[in-house]
Amino acid sequence: MDLRTEIHHMGAHARTAAHALAILSTAKKNSILLSMADELLAREASLLEANALDLEAAREAGLSAAMLDRLTLTPERLAAVAEGVRQVATLPDPVGETLRDWTRPNGIRIVKRRVPIGVIGIIFESRPNVTVDAAVLCFKTGNATILRGGREAIHSNLALAAALQEGGERAGLPPHAIQLIANTDRESVRHMAEMDRYLDLIIPRGGAGLIETVVSLARMPVIKHYDGICHTYIDRAADADMAEAVAVNAKTQKPGVCNTMETLLLHREVAAAQGPRLARAFAAKGVQLRGDEAFRSAVAAGAPEVAVEPATEADWRTEYLDLILSVGVVDDLDAAIVHINEYGSHHSDAIITGDPVAARRFQDEIDSAAVFWNCSTRFSDGGEFGFGAEIGISTDKLHARGPMGLEELTSYKYLVEGGGQIRG
Amino acid sequence: MDLRTEIHHMGAHARTAAHALAILSTAKKNSILLSMADELLAREASLLEANALDLEAAREAGLSAAMLDRLTLTPERLAAVAEGVRQVATLPDPVGETLRDWTRPNGIRIVKRRVPIGVIGIIFESRPNVTVDAAVLCFKTGNATILRGGREAIHSNLALAAALQEGGERAGLPPHAIQLIANTDRESVRHMAEMDRYLDLIIPRGGAGLIETVVSLARMPVIKHYDGICHTYIDRAADADMAEAVAVNAKTQKPGVCNTMETLLLHREVAAAQGPRLARAFAAKGVQLRGDEAFRSAVAAGAPEVAVEPATEADWRTEYLDLILSVGVVDDLDAAIVHINEYGSHHSDAIITGDPVAARRFQDEIDSAAVFWNCSTRFSDGGEFGFGAEIGISTDKLHARGPMGLEELTSYKYLVEGGGQIRG
Repeated sequence: MDLRTEIHHMGAHARTAAHALAILSTAKKNSILLSMADELLAREASLLEANALDLEAAREAGLSAAMLDRLTLTPERLAAVAEGVRQVATLPDPVGETLRDWTRPNGIRIVKRRVPIGVIGIIFESRPNVTVDAAVLCFKTGNATILRGGREAIHSNLALAAALQEGGERAGLPPHAIQLIANTDRESVRHMAEMDRYLDLIIPRGGAGLIETVVSLARMPVIKHYDGICHTYIDRAADADMAEAVAVNAKTQKPGVCNTMETLLLHREVAAAQGPRLARAFAAKGVQLRGDEAFRSAVAAGAPEVAVEPATEADWRTEYLDLILSVGVVDDLDAAIVHINEYGSHHSDAIITGDPVAARRFQDEIDSAAVFWNCSTRFSDGGEFGFGAEIGISTDKLHARGPMGLEELTSYKYLVEGGGQIRG
Repeated sequence: MDLRTEIHHMGAHARTAAHALAILSTAKKNSILLSMADELLAREASLLEANALDLEAAREAGLSAAMLDRLTLTPERLAAVAEGVRQVATLPDPVGETLRDWTRPNGIRIVKRRVPIGVIGIIFESRPNVTVDAAVLCFKTGNATILRGGREAIHSNLALAAALQEGGERAGLPPHAIQLIANTDRESVRHMAEMDRYLDLIIPRGGAGLIETVVSLARMPVIKHYDGICHTYIDRAADADMAEAVAVNAKTQKPGVCNTMETLLLHREVAAAQGPRLARAFAAKGVQLRGDEAFRSAVAAGAPEVAVEPATEADWRTEYLDLILSVGVVDDLDAAIVHINEYGSHHSDAIITGDPVAARRFQDEIDSAAVFWNCSTRFSDGGEFGFGAEIGISTDKLHARGPMGLEELTSYKYLVEGGGQIRG
């Protein structure tokens, strides 16, 4: 069987599974999740063996220590993965929720009910825990999944997917609810992306290159998670202590993630007073600064011991994911809004101010998924929002925007009940 | 300027307009709509003149009478279009609505607020009234639009778009909020579809060929409106009078539209009694019947005067949009569900039954945007659902499914308010 046919067969099986999944009760789904978790623990030895094959190949291929670490399963990590599956069982099930219920003047009653999306394709890179995370969140919301992971983790992924499917089946999981494509060539991504007959959605989880490939090929909706070029704007009415604490947290608490601040903007009236203080605070945390002329002058005057490189045009558009920060001085709130809407990535941006009018304008006019007032952009996260789980942070505006939990893995249908009405 | 550059300039202008549109008050938007309606009426003479150019070209090109009729503007039609714009001003504005509002244990408050999508591309075929309909619904929801109509209506479309933009500007419409691409080659569709930097969404309104082109090229979300292969299933517990009335309505009340029934399924136990009666009722309305063997036998026995052609495999997958109906006999409810999920287009399907258990199962298990119990599929419509306006009926499952009104032209953002919280 050629690869395209094979993937289409998986698609057809997934569609059948999706119909069965859509009508499983919440209790049934939860007991299946617990059975999956048990199976992951019961298979510890064989899962670690499969992982060892990946690690051996990765070492031969000369992968970096950081990559090897991301790829590595240990008994502790596996226990955490299984515990994550148990956690998903405790989350409320959004499927079946009545979103709206109304009756028309002609007597027909319309119920808008939350239902699963159907079949979701997940394409991801090397971390094997994504296999489990993505599959169980999709399953909890009644969706079938077709997973396609990276080459580096193929043995681990096949073993994990088999554990989930077989462990789940013992408790009543429909066949083919969770499938993994064994092929890790680019061809398999292409066949998935073209298979809109069976896939309702693709979620690529990985770097910009992977997302770009999926976007350019996909015929079905893609939920994307592009760059987070996040800003903090310190307004003239900001409390200086709060501004420093929040800005430093937004940059340094976890520099390698998408909701970290990449650009700091200062109102011109506070640049002289707060610029040097902020420069010292960032320098103390090991952050390299790149500033515009006004910021560099302010620091040269008030904190000459801190080096600030000149920021280039490219810096304002860069997601460093590192201890590097660009800092600019703006004339006023309007200039801050224009800068952020122009250079940002519409992900997460913050204003620090004691002025509610300025905050309101900032929150109204910044065109981003999450707009923060007096707190850190690091809170842009499904867990911090209270969603209980996170499948990603969407930089799209359709279907799902910002942190995505279980609700974002659902669609809806209209159930219409009449007494013989016909249209006149 | 080459075409791509020209369209990208329009995109950049639309993005600027979108930022201004997002913060217009509802009252302002409504007064702009009334000014647009006035302008359409004030320009009656020049609009009809532009339309005459299109009609002349269309007659020379030998377009059918039906196509010419769709293309034609008259003073009455123009008045109706202007009245439609006034109607949109009376509809509630979904933008700004609080969708959810909650406070986390750490004190940060999160408000999920409905906002415009941004910039919407509309690609449509020959009817010039779509120019106005689509633009004003997008405008009411705070979106900028880039319209690209068909060649046949280009003079009418340019004149209508100018009337909306200029009439609107007199009341405060931001520049470039409504733009029309003058180029009607396939190239302009391609440039739009690739312009994900500026377009948040494309909605193709037209035949399968147009939608297919957009789907295969688009890098941004597309809301599609594919076939409606709609079913009515007459269960063994159906009231025979209701079944006949609803089925005949679903097929014949407006045969050329997407929510019309294309396939009728009968429970085996009622085929002998109701088959002949239904065959007579459809024949009386001029409907050509194509049946499976069981239906043909039932009609041959009970209504031999009605001809029923044999249905082929292709018939079950065909959207006739005409007075043609395929009819099949199924063993039971399960077989009906399997048939509809397999052969249907997941648009709108109905069950006629007095048995609430059967109805519940049908509504749960049929994977369609709208599932009807004891009423006609013709009610699958934004107006009939009470949405006040309809931009289309989505056959997608993401973002919008089924009839789409104003809410479906919106996205959301999270406004997060804190008191200096940082992430630990």
